[in-house]
Amino acid sequence: MSHNTFGHLFRVTTWGESHGPALGCVVDGCPPGIRFTLADIQTELDRRRPGKSRFVTQRREPDAVRVLSGVLAEEDGETLVTTGTPVSMMIENVDQRSKDYGEIARQFRPGHADYTYDAKYGIRDYRGGGRSSARETAARVAAGALARKVVPELVVRGALVSMGEKSIDRAHWDWDFVDDPENPFFTPDPGSVPVFVDYLDGIRKAGSSVGAVIEIVAEGVPAGLGAPIYGKLDQDIASLLMSINAVKGVEIGNGFEAARITGEANADEMRMGNDGRPIFLSNNAGGILGGISTGQPVVARFAVKPTSSILSPRQSIDVEGNNVEVVTKGRHDPCVGIRAVPIGEAMVACAIADHYLRHRGQVGEKAVDNRQSTIGDG
Amino acid sequence: MSHNTFGHLFRVTTWGESHGPALGCVVDGCPPGIRFTLADIQTELDRRRPGKSRFVTQRREPDAVRVLSGVLAEEDGETLVTTGTPVSMMIENVDQRSKDYGEIARQFRPGHADYTYDAKYGIRDYRGGGRSSARETAARVAAGALARKVVPELVVRGALVSMGEKSIDRAHWDWDFVDDPENPFFTPDPGSVPVFVDYLDGIRKAGSSVGAVIEIVAEGVPAGLGAPIYGKLDQDIASLLMSINAVKGVEIGNGFEAARITGEANADEMRMGNDGRPIFLSNNAGGILGGISTGQPVVARFAVKPTSSILSPRQSIDVEGNNVEVVTKGRHDPCVGIRAVPIGEAMVACAIADHYLRHRGQVGEKAVDNRQSTIGDG
Amino acid sequence: MSHNTFGHLFRVTTWGESHGPALGCVVDGCPPGIRFTLADIQTELDRRRPGKSRFVTQRREPDAVRVLSGVLAEEDGETLVTTGTPVSMMIENVDQRSKDYGEIARQFRPGHADYTYDAKYGIRDYRGGGRSSARETAARVAAGALARKVVPELVVRGALVSMGEKSIDRAHWDWDFVDDPENPFFTPDPGSVPVFVDYLDGIRKAGSSVGAVIEIVAEGVPAGLGAPIYGKLDQDIASLLMSINAVKGVEIGNGFEAARITGEANADEMRMGNDGRPIFLSNNAGGILGGISTGQPVVARFAVKPTSSILSPRQSIDVEGNNVEVVTKGRHDPCVGIRAVPIGEAMVACAIADHYLRHRGQVGEKAVDNRQSTIGDG
Amino acid sequence: MSHNTFGHLFRVTTWGESHGPALGCVVDGCPPGIRFTLADIQTELDRRRPGKSRFVTQRREPDAVRVLSGVLAEEDGETLVTTGTPVSMMIENVDQRSKDYGEIARQFRPGHADYTYDAKYGIRDYRGGGRSSARETAARVAAGALARKVVPELVVRGALVSMGEKSIDRAHWDWDFVDDPENPFFTPDPGSVPVFVDYLDGIRKAGSSVGAVIEIVAEGVPAGLGAPIYGKLDQDIASLLMSINAVKGVEIGNGFEAARITGEANADEMRMGNDGRPIFLSNNAGGILGGISTGQPVVARFAVKPTSSILSPRQSIDVEGNNVEVVTKGRHDPCVGIRAVPIGEAMVACAIADHYLRHRGQVGEKAVDNRQSTIGDG
Repeated sequence: MSHNTFGHLFRVTTWGESHGPALGCVVDGCPPGIRFTLADIQTELDRRRPGKSRFVTQRREPDAVRVLSGVLAEEDGETLVTTGTPVSMMIENVDQRSKDYGEIARQFRPGHADYTYDAKYGIRDYRGGGRSSARETAARVAAGALARKVVPELVVRGALVSMGEKSIDRAHWDWDFVDDPENPFFTPDPGSVPVFVDYLDGIRKAGSSVGAVIEIVAEGVPAGLGAPIYGKLDQDIASLLMSINAVKGVEIGNGFEAARITGEANADEMRMGNDGRPIFLSNNAGGILGGISTGQPVVARFAVKPTSSILSPRQSIDVEGNNVEVVTKGRHDPCVGIRAVPIGEAMVACAIADHYLRHRGQVGEKAVDNRQSTIGDG
Repeated sequence: MSHNTFGHLFRVTTWGESHGPALGCVVDGCPPGIRFTLADIQTELDRRRPGKSRFVTQRREPDAVRVLSGVLAEEDGETLVTTGTPVSMMIENVDQRSKDYGEIARQFRPGHADYTYDAKYGIRDYRGGGRSSARETAARVAAGALARKVVPELVVRGALVSMGEKSIDRAHWDWDFVDDPENPFFTPDPGSVPVFVDYLDGIRKAGSSVGAVIEIVAEGVPAGLGAPIYGKLDQDIASLLMSINAVKGVEIGNGFEAARITGEANADEMRMGNDGRPIFLSNNAGGILGGISTGQPVVARFAVKPTSSILSPRQSIDVEGNNVEVVTKGRHDPCVGIRAVPIGEAMVACAIADHYLRHRGQVGEKAVDNRQSTIGDG
Repeated sequence: MSHNTFGHLFRVTTWGESHGPALGCVVDGCPPGIRFTLADIQTELDRRRPGKSRFVTQRREPDAVRVLSGVLAEEDGETLVTTGTPVSMMIENVDQRSKDYGEIARQFRPGHADYTYDAKYGIRDYRGGGRSSARETAARVAAGALARKVVPELVVRGALVSMGEKSIDRAHWDWDFVDDPENPFFTPDPGSVPVFVDYLDGIRKAGSSVGAVIEIVAEGVPAGLGAPIYGKLDQDIASLLMSINAVKGVEIGNGFEAARITGEANADEMRMGNDGRPIFLSNNAGGILGGISTGQPVVARFAVKPTSSILSPRQSIDVEGNNVEVVTKGRHDPCVGIRAVPIGEAMVACAIADHYLRHRGQVGEKAVDNRQSTIGDG
Repeated sequence: MSHNTFGHLFRVTTWGESHGPALGCVVDGCPPGIRFTLADIQTELDRRRPGKSRFVTQRREPDAVRVLSGVLAEEDGETLVTTGTPVSMMIENVDQRSKDYGEIARQFRPGHADYTYDAKYGIRDYRGGGRSSARETAARVAAGALARKVVPELVVRGALVSMGEKSIDRAHWDWDFVDDPENPFFTPDPGSVPVFVDYLDGIRKAGSSVGAVIEIVAEGVPAGLGAPIYGKLDQDIASLLMSINAVKGVEIGNGFEAARITGEANADEMRMGNDGRPIFLSNNAGGILGGISTGQPVVARFAVKPTSSILSPRQSIDVEGNNVEVVTKGRHDPCVGIRAVPIGEAMVACAIADHYLRHRGQVGEKAVDNRQSTIGDG
């Protein structure tokens, strides 16, 4: 993994800034013969697209993706099939609203990467966050849409499970509700919508912001993906989730809760199922033991900090070392964590696709065929 | 990063199983001219060594390290100096107590990697956990001891901050106490010792186990290490901490707490210091903004699950698909998290050393000279 | 190095097929603050562009490059300066002349990659050679133009030294003549032009093709780049030259000649120069000893096979296993090696830029400052 | 590929100097279930071992290999089976004859890496060539012995085809003779032995040295290994052969000869065989087209320069910049190329094993099953 590439056999390189002409990704190592449509990619991009409700930034970007290489079109004119060569995808930036960046260009906004970019590179593209812009995540989502096709039967879904001080009721978890048009939050709990609406309206009107916790669940992951150490599946998932802007923590399975309970409570017991596959009686491990998938659903959570762009003045310094007060204007999400749901899904899908190919490389195909165990309900 | 290698310019490859003849690591890319002694390495190894109190496994291993390559001895007979070629370090396994692994060889212990190893490889070295054994971490600690020397002024320290339901009082944090001979827990809070003793004695006598949370703090990290995305310093720290056996969660700075608070509360404000360096008024970010170090202390925490080896029988299956009850015998730590402190330090040191060299490669030497900011106390 | 990426710190990923909408590259890890203009890139692209004489393919491609990310424009409106984030460059395919690929789609052309693509992927983009098209090399040349800017004082030049049975006279080597508008061959020997013209006209009219040998010389390479083994500078140069389509052999310095002479004849003796730098009395080593640059010019040569597209019918088979006769029509170079000159330069520049950054990472900046030795004339 | 690691899925890291306590390698990514014996490894090591005839260095090293990890012993007590975890192999240095390195420590021997090591690292282990010692190649040979087991039906053989001005007669090529005890040269031509004996005795008695060309042929390589560019099978073979000490040139198939002939002469025509597999009528391509294996034998050659250690005084400088005359004493091979035969075989075997796993990862197992074509005899 280098600075702008991740993955080993399913490798993704992304490029682009918020206010350049375009952004994109190159997916290298995709197996040949994978069939998909532009709509498969666009659907995922539309899920993370800004401007869909008053709770996300009003920047208007169509985020229309072009596939520039690595595919052949089938006769239906819609289906694309991968050839095994690099798949380059590009999204043009359309809404680069012209504005005066005078102050931002010179001030270090607290919580932003302004100061650290300057410390590292001595030069930075301050327009819209530059490389750290949330727009970069469109490239991840495009790559993730392809990753989902690589592993047969893989289903990766995500949901927002808490926003600031408010949390969902897990007893009311409904996956179908997550993408409901009436649901601006990717919450799986219908009852949480009015709570989040009230809460976030207050935050938004105050010019404030708030963080969120997102949970990603991957089903259809064959047992055996990952490695005992360094190439642990949970490690690579954690790494990719942590690579998302504003993420400050990652958990697998019961995560930090595991540090509070005993070995008896934490053990996921097993029984033999009627179909010859093991049944796990719980899934505290989040589908990964010793770095290797168990065949249970893989479960990960990540914490997104509140966006640092707020209306309240904050103390800071400028590039010349003067003390200043910074007020961030412009279009920003009061809870940037909402749109992180499809991004988190994409990252988990990419990690699993990469390990699927790595496992097939080391151990061979038969190994990934028939080990998937039944999902335990606990 | 491949299955058994991590790092890009400061690259560490580890090898070895619990019950093979030896284990070790190869550190590639270490700058030439780094001076160290065997004692520097051994001191760190001794900190994680088993058998030092009744709270850690009684396996007796001297863990004596040999340096096999990549160094020249200076005339004092003690100082070794790196030549820039790979440094190979080896630790022989001495106490491979012979015992009957008959049942363990055939049963899948809940919470262990037994089932997943079998699902992945179709073969496994069941003796002592094989590659997943905590013994592998000795190789990491040896590599970390060298990493500490690579970055001038770098100080990486760790401490246990909670054990099961018990936590330290941060108001009584005393770094000097962490390595006190009277402190079997790497806790920084002297007042916590009797609490942990009572608690863990109960756990141990019940044949149970419990998890822990470890905090690592790195001081002397120059501003500018890391990259905006994918090569984020926090990402690589999270990845390496998650690569430690039994770790289920990682946080940077205030971590999951960031998801619960507002942007105003989370912002680390800045003022200009008298010495021409910025002062951060708090460190919620854990010393990293936008993936790049700020010059503040880098702070990370990780959650270690309770060891899965417990005396209470657990339901499981065996390799032939029979339902069985598993009871784990043998020498085990009631709280494996205790010994994770020096391991976590080693991982953080390796991540920082690697990014120090990567940064110097991309941006040049001057950049890493004089950007370190004053540490904010908040 | 993965399938479509090369380099470690100066990393280049290329993408695109001959008949897709575009092709391009992403250069990751470029130091910040590198200044260049579009013209710097375009000049190199124009050198390898088809359609400039009757000796190269008549496909008409403007090869106009766009820089999509990783740069800021300076006030002069021409100078671009790198920010340290990925530089994405794209070249649109314009002249995708529509034609009937019916037979080529089904036949395996001898000497082409048709059969092996099919054996590997089971699917292939047969239009214009797909990923193996010489058009892909435009992306390399663009990346190489940037690489040339990374190492101060680096000058990388190439020349065609033989074509089929005809060779230049080295006594008449004139670097200035290589890019002379009257020179369609990148030959450094003015006297060779009429010889090559006659020879290649005969080849071309016969519908035949012929190979060539190209020599690349890099001056201004500081001593100390490379590593003793595996990361040898000559190894990475050989690897990148061999990655060019149709290349079948690579030599460093005197190359295969070294295998024919004695140690006495091969040794490059040294004397101390008046300026405190060593003088090598010859350069059989091609500027590299033990994998590390000596400060002398780095010299490499590579052999390009004759293009496999010829008018004479050749025996082959088709995708269904029928014996067939293949005749290749279409626009093709009678000596594809001619246009390989700027490509070879680009590959050598990229290898040196990468090792320059890697060396600076491991050893630090001072090391690359003042070791460059005087060039020996032998 | 980093400085001391090569390969992607079959990854080899080597370590060790000539005069340290030991040297070795770590092979990561080896598939589980590979069966081998210590004798399999030792046999290959013995082939490259010094001290077997008057034509190779008289250093006496048993080169006894130990396997320290990554295997389980089967009940026969001899067979080892890989578990999928890293295989660490170590060879102790026994014959580190104590001698006075006073002069060599201070002088830069022409043709050796002395000067470049000093320029790069500012420090070097001058004893016996340090990291550049031919002893390092023992680690490669050990890894290669394992690589040979990874690809079913793979047979990799090598032979010396020329020594200085003398070449074999290819019409008398006899693979069985290569390892004949009466053959001190790995030549495949029995008639060449007396010629080489006379020639090399003259070289040896004159205190001189001479180079050699080695040819490696790999049979049983399935069609489809490699990639169109950057991950070309020939590229990776060239890279690894070039990584061997003293190698200055590499060719695939007819190599530089391809640059001298026409497209008609170079084309390897195909016919359909009775068994449903294609027959190539020649193998100019050396079994690789467009970077991907054809199923024919893979053929590579490399040029080894004469060892730089010769008795004739050569002009040089010392570390303080004084002009000096250097005479190399000590045990050295008059033709170091002879022992390069098993080393070249090991490198080719490693490259093929790695691509076999990479191909299986990207494309799946069926693809590598039944594409191997019949070998053409031309």
